[in-house]
Amino acid sequence: MKLTIKEQSPGITDVPGFSASGVSSDIRGTGADRLDLGIILSEAVCTGAGVFTQNDVSAAPVHFCKSLLSPTQAFHGIVVNSGNANACTGEQGKQDCAAMADCTREALSLPAKSVFVASTGRIGRSLPMPKIEKGIREAAKRVTRDSAGGHDFAKAILTSDTRPKTVTVRIESEGKRYTVAGVAKGAGMIEPNMATMLAFIATDIKVPQATLQATLTRAVHGSFNRISVDGDMSTNDTVLLLANGSSGDSIHDDANLLDAFHKAVGEVCSRLARMIVADGERISHVVDLHIKGAKNEEDAEKVARAIGNSLLVKTSWFGNDPNWGRIVDAAGYARIGLDYDQLNLHYGDIPVLVKGTPVEENLPQWKAEVSNREFSITLDLGMGKKDYHLLTADLTEGYVNFNKSE
Amino acid sequence: MKLTIKEQSPGITDVPGFSASGVSSDIRGTGADRLDLGIILSEAVCTGAGVFTQNDVSAAPVHFCKSLLSPTQAFHGIVVNSGNANACTGEQGKQDCAAMADCTREALSLPAKSVFVASTGRIGRSLPMPKIEKGIREAAKRVTRDSAGGHDFAKAILTSDTRPKTVTVRIESEGKRYTVAGVAKGAGMIEPNMATMLAFIATDIKVPQATLQATLTRAVHGSFNRISVDGDMSTNDTVLLLANGSSGDSIHDDANLLDAFHKAVGEVCSRLARMIVADGERISHVVDLHIKGAKNEEDAEKVARAIGNSLLVKTSWFGNDPNWGRIVDAAGYARIGLDYDQLNLHYGDIPVLVKGTPVEENLPQWKAEVSNREFSITLDLGMGKKDYHLLTADLTEGYVNFNKSE
Repeated sequence: MKLTIKEQSPGITDVPGFSASGVSSDIRGTGADRLDLGIILSEAVCTGAGVFTQNDVSAAPVHFCKSLLSPTQAFHGIVVNSGNANACTGEQGKQDCAAMADCTREALSLPAKSVFVASTGRIGRSLPMPKIEKGIREAAKRVTRDSAGGHDFAKAILTSDTRPKTVTVRIESEGKRYTVAGVAKGAGMIEPNMATMLAFIATDIKVPQATLQATLTRAVHGSFNRISVDGDMSTNDTVLLLANGSSGDSIHDDANLLDAFHKAVGEVCSRLARMIVADGERISHVVDLHIKGAKNEEDAEKVARAIGNSLLVKTSWFGNDPNWGRIVDAAGYARIGLDYDQLNLHYGDIPVLVKGTPVEENLPQWKAEVSNREFSITLDLGMGKKDYHLLTADLTEGYVNFNKSE
Repeated sequence: MKLTIKEQSPGITDVPGFSASGVSSDIRGTGADRLDLGIILSEAVCTGAGVFTQNDVSAAPVHFCKSLLSPTQAFHGIVVNSGNANACTGEQGKQDCAAMADCTREALSLPAKSVFVASTGRIGRSLPMPKIEKGIREAAKRVTRDSAGGHDFAKAILTSDTRPKTVTVRIESEGKRYTVAGVAKGAGMIEPNMATMLAFIATDIKVPQATLQATLTRAVHGSFNRISVDGDMSTNDTVLLLANGSSGDSIHDDANLLDAFHKAVGEVCSRLARMIVADGERISHVVDLHIKGAKNEEDAEKVARAIGNSLLVKTSWFGNDPNWGRIVDAAGYARIGLDYDQLNLHYGDIPVLVKGTPVEENLPQWKAEVSNREFSITLDLGMGKKDYHLLTADLTEGYVNFNKSE
């Protein structure tokens, strides 16, 4: 099995049997000609899997998607709008969400319960349904297997993102080729009340629902759940995976293919997750934070999140300041019982603390390392063998200015 | 019992029997004539109580003070330096801390173990002990009961604070007068690696150690533990309370006096806590966040801290933006199982959400309310009867710029 990875690909339309579109329906009401509504379609029946926000306040489309998911449900597509999250919209929001699915199904002659819905954008306002239904009918007409369809869809789901986020993984084996491709949006919690991380992934491998769900859950755990731009979890976060089996080959007939599929979905999720952080609102640094030597993964994660979400750590990264004191302080308030005298800290490969003692002569190298746009930090707690990886970013004046008002 | 409260008072020297001083010893090495070392002294023996940071990485003086505290230990004073936190300084830090106490005791002829030590400022560098010991001897010579001593001490402990923080509470009863006064510093985690919240409180009431500790613990729980500027907990946070009994009256002889003492210590802590938030680094709003209607206080606190530490909520406050969506989103990711349709939200007295439905016609009043420098937000979860109060602040571009480097 050979995996080939391509970023900034057409995404969904790279997968045989999938078509897509993106149209402009003026959901934001600005009159601008901006793509804001997209459809993903597979004429062949798909199995479907999903992972969703754990926020107590979750939006109507999150409830709707969760209610559809079952081991036996057959899916044909996804309809997505940007510009309005359909969150905190009460009973009207639920009806509007169902109407989005119904309108899509009718326009494309699809059976009941076969269309997922996702929304992202402003919260607390009802969807402009006449515009949305007009847009859905237009998008349904335009769905295409051409790469333009994938590109348009990738643009239609964006909010404060500065660029589309797509990746395609090709699996090659004995002259056969399979595809897993994905598209995502997200750049913080935003636009203008908040935003969201959405990702949609498709494959032409035939995958039973239970396997699909397990694969997606594992991949999300190792990717989207390990990124943090501002520590704010959205009401709308959604990751969906559709498998239409159009390659004719089932994952269960080939252990190697199963393994390759796991890797491919993992790659798609990890690449999209990194793109989200790298496009984080007004960030200037992407930081790979590795916590090692913990007693258990939970402790390692607590330390990683304390550091990765510390305002003082994040502002020091913005200033290219190798401020190990703030890192150690944040690690300490994770309160896992760490022992300062056991800490080993590295910026990139450069030792910063050895058993709690700073290697001061390395200061010029520390500064050079944290001045890179992307760098890694490794903190070894010296307490055990478990680790955790968090991909995070700095906090800039630009972020504060960008988010200070509607 | 009548309580009279005065802020911006001389602080410690308002308490009969207490003297204080502050001197310039160039701990920062800048050559500037800045007060940076202070002493509090009671010639009469005191009982003492303390509350400290819960950070796993705590500084040498925190360990030192904890080791002194016991029901039978007699205290005479406190020595404090700013400019260097004596944190992450290993064995040398412990020796330097003990040397600060010894130097103070020798200069003032005090018995063993009778002097507390506190430090605040840069971490990871050893104290400049020759300067510090010279400063201590100078400060010991200058201790005075005059108000100038209290004012100088209040200045000497500051780091990035823009102003001294003091409060004096007088308790009057049947012609007798008792005093509880305090002084604090803190404005975020700062200067240049981090900073700290320190508070020192004194009284002339005679209070047994167990009562003193219980009173202080309760007061800190209701004040300093309920403020958040940037969510970063320091390595050095310390609150100390000394009672020298110079009024001649014991708390145990008078239930009314005990009650008044609780109130007075509570007032001193609450007032100092509010001064710390109001002087938070580059803040432009102070926000009283009330979470009501929770099943238990823990849930209410989780929701309060999720909201109060959310970057998106804090940046919206900076922008005078009545962004209830971000508040509700943050409440949701506290994950206490809240029900959006039960939420009632107020800015000041103005309804924002009633059972989850926005009262849109109030928008102009929402904007006016959150444009005030100080305002309150009340979120009723509709789940029970418990509440929590958190005093917090906005996040400004100025904060990011101020903290981006050493």
